[in-house]
Amino acid sequence: MTTEIAEPISPEQRALEDELVATVVASFDHTPDPRLKELMQSLTRHLHAFIRDVRLTEAEWNTAIEFLTAAGHITDARRQEFVLLSDVLGVSMQTIAVNNRAYKGATDATVFGPFFLDDAPEIPLGGDIAGGASGQPCWVEGTVTDTDGKPVAGARIEVWECDEDGFYDVQYGDERVAGRAHLFADDNGRYRFWGLTPVPYPIPHDGPVGTMLEATGRSPVRASHLHFMVAAGGLRTLVTHIFVDGDPQIEIGDSVFGVKDSLITEFAPQVPGTPTPDGRDLGDRSWARARFDIVLAPDGV
Amino acid sequence: MTTEIAEPISPEQRALEDELVATVVASFDHTPDPRLKELMQSLTRHLHAFIRDVRLTEAEWNTAIEFLTAAGHITDARRQEFVLLSDVLGVSMQTIAVNNRAYKGATDATVFGPFFLDDAPEIPLGGDIAGGASGQPCWVEGTVTDTDGKPVAGARIEVWECDEDGFYDVQYGDERVAGRAHLFADDNGRYRFWGLTPVPYPIPHDGPVGTMLEATGRSPVRASHLHFMVAAGGLRTLVTHIFVDGDPQIEIGDSVFGVKDSLITEFAPQVPGTPTPDGRDLGDRSWARARFDIVLAPDGV
Repeated sequence: MTTEIAEPISPEQRALEDELVATVVASFDHTPDPRLKELMQSLTRHLHAFIRDVRLTEAEWNTAIEFLTAAGHITDARRQEFVLLSDVLGVSMQTIAVNNRAYKGATDATVFGPFFLDDAPEIPLGGDIAGGASGQPCWVEGTVTDTDGKPVAGARIEVWECDEDGFYDVQYGDERVAGRAHLFADDNGRYRFWGLTPVPYPIPHDGPVGTMLEATGRSPVRASHLHFMVAAGGLRTLVTHIFVDGDPQIEIGDSVFGVKDSLITEFAPQVPGTPTPDGRDLGDRSWARARFDIVLAPDGV
Repeated sequence: MTTEIAEPISPEQRALEDELVATVVASFDHTPDPRLKELMQSLTRHLHAFIRDVRLTEAEWNTAIEFLTAAGHITDARRQEFVLLSDVLGVSMQTIAVNNRAYKGATDATVFGPFFLDDAPEIPLGGDIAGGASGQPCWVEGTVTDTDGKPVAGARIEVWECDEDGFYDVQYGDERVAGRAHLFADDNGRYRFWGLTPVPYPIPHDGPVGTMLEATGRSPVRASHLHFMVAAGGLRTLVTHIFVDGDPQIEIGDSVFGVKDSLITEFAPQVPGTPTPDGRDLGDRSWARARFDIVLAPDGV
């Protein structure tokens, strides 16, 4: 597509466009809820600024309407194209950033993703989250403390991840529950479990978001990661991942912009026969181990 | 909802948020089509600026995802909620403004709306577009000229409008074609037809857009209007309406921001028995008459 050099925009034209923005903003003046008013007026200003900055054509506007319509029609109980869209535009990650300000040494947050389930099974300390999911076994351990270094006894730790084929249990369309669990830290804030060594996988890319990624030369692949959600009374709930140090996708670019340097973790490879921390017999299988010490900010910061 | 006074945003926090914007913008650097690259990078900047300006909460983000999902699910071949959303945010009208710059005395453009059909019947000059639609008869006449005042012989004029109950033919869900037609200006650029005196009507407001309008205290009603699309070789196609002078909805606010002062037109009421321009016998019915002189800009301005 060639871009014509546009004529300069006359002061009269600018004034007309400004006036329209002011009229739309004013239409929300009588919104009873002040926060909703703020949101709608700010959204109006930013949307109009976008249209004016790019001088959006009517054909492009049509394409946008068709894109949103297709996103709406592919979205159902299992597939959320608008979340994917938010993710690949970094909107999800920016929302996380705005709501989880850096606080002293607290662990960084990252995107929640669409694959969490509320009712994952409980496992004991040292238990296995795999539940039949295939992949290389991986021992994960660490501590949960507050920003003063005090152990958080009994912190609730939710973990979830994809299998070695890059699929979460919920993507199989059967009733399996695998690759997810919750456990509780001990009285010293320590935790440990068996999971699977994370692998990279593409976000669902057979819909309009995938088409956009392809048209813009972007990879749909997420850097390998293991999801955590950690909660304890009086502390800010942490939603995060750990990423696998050395995964080439970190350099290529995580498709949803979730990577933070502080979350890149060594998953140390262990050759077959290396003794396991809990004496588990893995036969002739290789395994990995990772350590992730979690620091929770106070609630309300 | 009470809005807490937010803590000031630290320079470190701003830097983190800036860095995320830069990362997302850079992810589009290798887009082959330069225009698509420009669009995606500008969209990214404006979306992130919105999130940061309002400090969007995670609950608000969720509400936005739910809103878009509901809009997608109510949209079908007859109902286009994303067009309605664009309309009530003034996005449609701003796109029209950007693409139809004021040019000398050319007639102003306004929104296209979702109710145009390609294959409306042809009527002769002086014919009736009603096709069985109910409402007060209205004689409409005028000229089509270019910006030098030269008549545009044979200009194609499409007109469409709702009936007196506020519904377009396509909203009835049967196969009726009513309240729409096309005709051609004569050799002197003159045109004339019988239509219906326009009435105000609400845009479809039983979906998420209607819920938003209600929550923000806005009226879903469109000011009374008659749609025109006028095309002729070498001239910019004009999509516009004429509005009814004196309609109180003009003051309340047209729900899609389509009104321009230059498009407000006198629809002069005629008492029963007043002779009609073409001798048509309307019996004991009142009628109205309006004049709309159309000026087309050159193509490509």
